[in-house]
Amino acid sequence: MVTPRILTGFMELLPEDQILFDRMKDTIRSVYEQFGFLPLDTPTIELSDVLLAKAGGETEKQIYRFQKGDHDLALRFDLTVPLARYAAQHENDLVFPFKRYQISKVFRGERPQKGRFREFYQCDIDVIGIDSLPLYYDAEMPSVIYQVFKKLDFGPFTIRLNNRKVLNGFFSDLGLSDKIADVLRTIDKLDKIGEENVAKELATFGISEEEIEKIFQLIHIKGTTDEILQKVEALPVTNELFRQGVTELQEVVRFMRLLGMPDDSFEVDLTIARGLDYYTGTVYETRLDDYPQLGSVCSGGRYDNLTGFYTKTNMPGIGISIGLTRLFSQLKEAGIISAEQKTMAEVLVIPMSEDEMGAAVSAAAAFRENGVRTDVYSLSKGMKQKMKYASRLGVPYIVLIGEDEAAKGLVALKNMQTGE
Amino acid sequence: MVTPRILTGFMELLPEDQILFDRMKDTIRSVYEQFGFLPLDTPTIELSDVLLAKAGGETEKQIYRFQKGDHDLALRFDLTVPLARYAAQHENDLVFPFKRYQISKVFRGERPQKGRFREFYQCDIDVIGIDSLPLYYDAEMPSVIYQVFKKLDFGPFTIRLNNRKVLNGFFSDLGLSDKIADVLRTIDKLDKIGEENVAKELATFGISEEEIEKIFQLIHIKGTTDEILQKVEALPVTNELFRQGVTELQEVVRFMRLLGMPDDSFEVDLTIARGLDYYTGTVYETRLDDYPQLGSVCSGGRYDNLTGFYTKTNMPGIGISIGLTRLFSQLKEAGIISAEQKTMAEVLVIPMSEDEMGAAVSAAAAFRENGVRTDVYSLSKGMKQKMKYASRLGVPYIVLIGEDEAAKGLVALKNMQTGE
Repeated sequence: MVTPRILTGFMELLPEDQILFDRMKDTIRSVYEQFGFLPLDTPTIELSDVLLAKAGGETEKQIYRFQKGDHDLALRFDLTVPLARYAAQHENDLVFPFKRYQISKVFRGERPQKGRFREFYQCDIDVIGIDSLPLYYDAEMPSVIYQVFKKLDFGPFTIRLNNRKVLNGFFSDLGLSDKIADVLRTIDKLDKIGEENVAKELATFGISEEEIEKIFQLIHIKGTTDEILQKVEALPVTNELFRQGVTELQEVVRFMRLLGMPDDSFEVDLTIARGLDYYTGTVYETRLDDYPQLGSVCSGGRYDNLTGFYTKTNMPGIGISIGLTRLFSQLKEAGIISAEQKTMAEVLVIPMSEDEMGAAVSAAAAFRENGVRTDVYSLSKGMKQKMKYASRLGVPYIVLIGEDEAAKGLVALKNMQTGE
Repeated sequence: MVTPRILTGFMELLPEDQILFDRMKDTIRSVYEQFGFLPLDTPTIELSDVLLAKAGGETEKQIYRFQKGDHDLALRFDLTVPLARYAAQHENDLVFPFKRYQISKVFRGERPQKGRFREFYQCDIDVIGIDSLPLYYDAEMPSVIYQVFKKLDFGPFTIRLNNRKVLNGFFSDLGLSDKIADVLRTIDKLDKIGEENVAKELATFGISEEEIEKIFQLIHIKGTTDEILQKVEALPVTNELFRQGVTELQEVVRFMRLLGMPDDSFEVDLTIARGLDYYTGTVYETRLDDYPQLGSVCSGGRYDNLTGFYTKTNMPGIGISIGLTRLFSQLKEAGIISAEQKTMAEVLVIPMSEDEMGAAVSAAAAFRENGVRTDVYSLSKGMKQKMKYASRLGVPYIVLIGEDEAAKGLVALKNMQTGE
């Protein structure tokens, strides 16, 4: 006998939680489709040389990689690399800009910690263009996420956005181009370690007090969205990239409003850099206002050329991702969501005795025919146990079929909550 | 530069086919839920000792198995073993009979042949009981499949059913109990090799001519469902298991009719054995009447004790499975299905010039707000190219936003098929 168990770091749910999880997944998918994103379902297993064409040290360590026959294989660790591979591979068959969503599991063999999973769902949308990609999509991304979180209904949330050109241009203007990576990584820690420590860390990179002061001038810009946009525009920075970034931010905000996003749903935050090296324009983070401890629940940004390892065609893109498994686990833990429904059935048909089993089955068929999700109680047990089962299952309605009902072909529904 | 490609034996679809595939998957899921089956989503990666507790030679060879850190891991090769593990592991948290569906990919590293995949979707339903499981479920399985194939609408189909007790009892009566496996395997080839060859092969197992004649008496029983049931009941076989099997078949047919299955949708076929050793009662196959060459597109049956490797609790079950990836690929190949829709969007909003981009975006937001899946054309191209894009995308409706429309806030829909 083998003890039935799964490996730690893998999420497996009881039915009531699975129903809840699937409902979230369905909501996300329906909004993605509302915006015209096309479905994609790439293989779980890819060839290692293809999947790891770009990958660096950390990824290589985390990946599930194995040999089968003559093939060196690996499980996908995100949905972005397979998308890049797919877009390059099917370049001639796809219509660009290519908008796709993929809701799939990805795999990372890291040490499991609280809230970290080795196998988890990502819900990604990306748009990929050829040579160029209109700025409109930089606004569509947060607009999709706005609709998703509005429908998911976890309370107020804020999508924070910034533009890497603003940051890169600003630091280039300060003559700190070679330190941008260090500076951005340090600024990213602002929420965690505070301003004083950020200043100290910046100094360790040989950045002068005067420069640090200027950096904080940028970081300190606060106010309404329009005030922030005005203040950043008014900064005495002549760098062209910076100016372009500011114009882009303004344009993206304009489109976001046209797309129906209210001002309290988003915020221009000049301190957001998003760690990943490949972001080159707009970047996003999303926070649940009442639960800042969850961190960003949805992030992404624009990248210039993701497919460079697979094709000579220049394919800029923009994407955003919801880490659903982690989000679900955090929301459950924080008590923000909880299972309400333990059964898929809306109606449970219960025959009073075995003589009425046939009538019960017919009744169930009629309910199903009319679009009602229906189950039949079929065990030969006493009435008390039947009712106990119904209540344990948590089914909203039951139908009792006795001699009378079977003879007349009529049924009466009982609401299990009100008892009516 | 790495050539973007995937391993053979893996299905990856272009958007129009993915839309079609997903629609089939959604149909299957909605019918499964209609019958009150609960969703389940087990990990893709399991511990090898758990997953392979029961597995034999062929399975072991096919499995994707690998080491990560201290763990010996494997990808699931079906959805039944993970279900057995899950039911045993969560025995105390589940309500039995436990009805679950799982629509997930499974992995088998076999040599890829036409129509065989190394990674493919299975769409399974199973019901698991404790100690016993009512015969009603033996009728619910084909009833679900009937509704699925009715909705999928590939033309007429027949669900064939049999009962292993009828076969086992019959052969036991003939004193051929020790040859049952050989006989059943041979009978299973009837469609492929014909009666004469079956008789020859049976003879090689030392089965006498007289016995073979009796076997063919069973096999030759034909007619309407009721005629078949009468004829098999009238056979001069006293074996108790045989009698029990006949009674079960009759009862299952009665329930299937009560569940609304018309007589032309199913057929009692006394030659079906289904290869798998673990079936012990009702067994099923499903054929598309107009495409017999596809073989069985949906099979399953009843098993006595699937969880024996994980728990002492006796858990009988019954299940049926649609191999969706294979089915989809066969249907496409045979021209039974073909992609109709290349875009998720129902409406594409096209601004006449960049000046109307804002109005176009507002219009798109309004469409989406009203539940219409909408896309916006955002490239700065000429009108001709815009129309070409719309037609290449195959979007059903377009909305042109010119100066007038932008000023008045009114839009006109154009049906791309009729030109209206």
